[in-house]
Amino acid sequence: MQLFIGNKNYSSWSLRAWLMLAKSGVNFSEVKLTLDTPEFYKRLESVTPTLKVPTLIDNEIAVWDSLAICEYINDAYMSGAGWPSEQVMRAKARALACEMHSGFNGIRNEMPMNIRATRYVELSEQAKKDITRVEQIWCEQMQKFAGHGDWLFGSWSIVDAMFAPVALRFKTYGITLNEDASRYMETVLNCSDLQCWIADALKETDIVAIDEAGKERES
Amino acid sequence: MQLFIGNKNYSSWSLRAWLMLAKSGVNFSEVKLTLDTPEFYKRLESVTPTLKVPTLIDNEIAVWDSLAICEYINDAYMSGAGWPSEQVMRAKARALACEMHSGFNGIRNEMPMNIRATRYVELSEQAKKDITRVEQIWCEQMQKFAGHGDWLFGSWSIVDAMFAPVALRFKTYGITLNEDASRYMETVLNCSDLQCWIADALKETDIVAIDEAGKERES
Repeated sequence: MQLFIGNKNYSSWSLRAWLMLAKSGVNFSEVKLTLDTPEFYKRLESVTPTLKVPTLIDNEIAVWDSLAICEYINDAYMSGAGWPSEQVMRAKARALACEMHSGFNGIRNEMPMNIRATRYVELSEQAKKDITRVEQIWCEQMQKFAGHGDWLFGSWSIVDAMFAPVALRFKTYGITLNEDASRYMETVLNCSDLQCWIADALKETDIVAIDEAGKERES
Repeated sequence: MQLFIGNKNYSSWSLRAWLMLAKSGVNFSEVKLTLDTPEFYKRLESVTPTLKVPTLIDNEIAVWDSLAICEYINDAYMSGAGWPSEQVMRAKARALACEMHSGFNGIRNEMPMNIRATRYVELSEQAKKDITRVEQIWCEQMQKFAGHGDWLFGSWSIVDAMFAPVALRFKTYGITLNEDASRYMETVLNCSDLQCWIADALKETDIVAIDEAGKERES
């Protein structure tokens, strides 16, 4: 199984799919392509009609899009264990994952994932609203599952893969959160799989100008 | 079970969830709220943290987001029959549904769903690329499943709910497609459930200014 990803420093959607694969325990190799280079598009041409990462190739199956990759791995290799087992919780987890998948444009546009950077950005009202909503979600889930694990639904689930890059963005741009939400952010940042990803990201030297937002900030 | 939706003339995400419910055969009542009115936000306040439609309430379960609603109905009431039964096809269907869920911003921004209108819009390169990609998807699937039904994977599946509003947009803005893709567009437009939705939309008189794009066109 091959997962095509972009730069680990910048590609937040790649990270989501990669974390899912890492957490599932399935054997896979990663193919890292530097975003927005001729090589990137050339390699993806025969792999995905969207020319985007992440894309997963599993024998004759091609799955593009991070959420579809998560659902595929859950379906094919995890017997559904990628989502909470209780139906009410599973419904909520999917609603949150989908909310991230199609929304939070303020955060996504103004605070691009840039793992190695420490920055300050002036945020729009939309981005501030997005941050408040993320804080609300994290806080509510941490309180609800207190004593049952430090992920959003106690144990790790796909929704944690969807929110992981947001924790990295908050770190880069110095966003402070209330206590419960901060505890979740620590869970994410201390995750050993994520730390492997971060270590690789810090070794990268390519610059994607469009994702270099904000001014340097003392950490 | 209650589905909160917006104006039938304009709310493409509402239509997706509504079609899913209609196709599933599950019993539900719809609560239609006029988009962007004080009443809209007031009613949704106690229902969904996102204040968006569609939102589904099924006893103690609240599901916001159209794709999450589709997955929930599939999971809770259809024993998985909302997706193609074969794994390779299911993976592709989910990739296409997710591609629609998070992408096609050119189409979504420049060609708002506006069922009662007949318009012409000048399209950006991005919107034109989006149309070409939709045409490619529809054409490829129609060819692949020729003789097995006129939906994207032969029988109706969730991915058809995701693409249905695009057929309505193409009709409003006079987009012409190749033969196979046109055949799919006809399948969607002739669907009896969709025709019920359209009939209701045509009775509406509220105007949402932001969704009134383009100039009048002879039909």
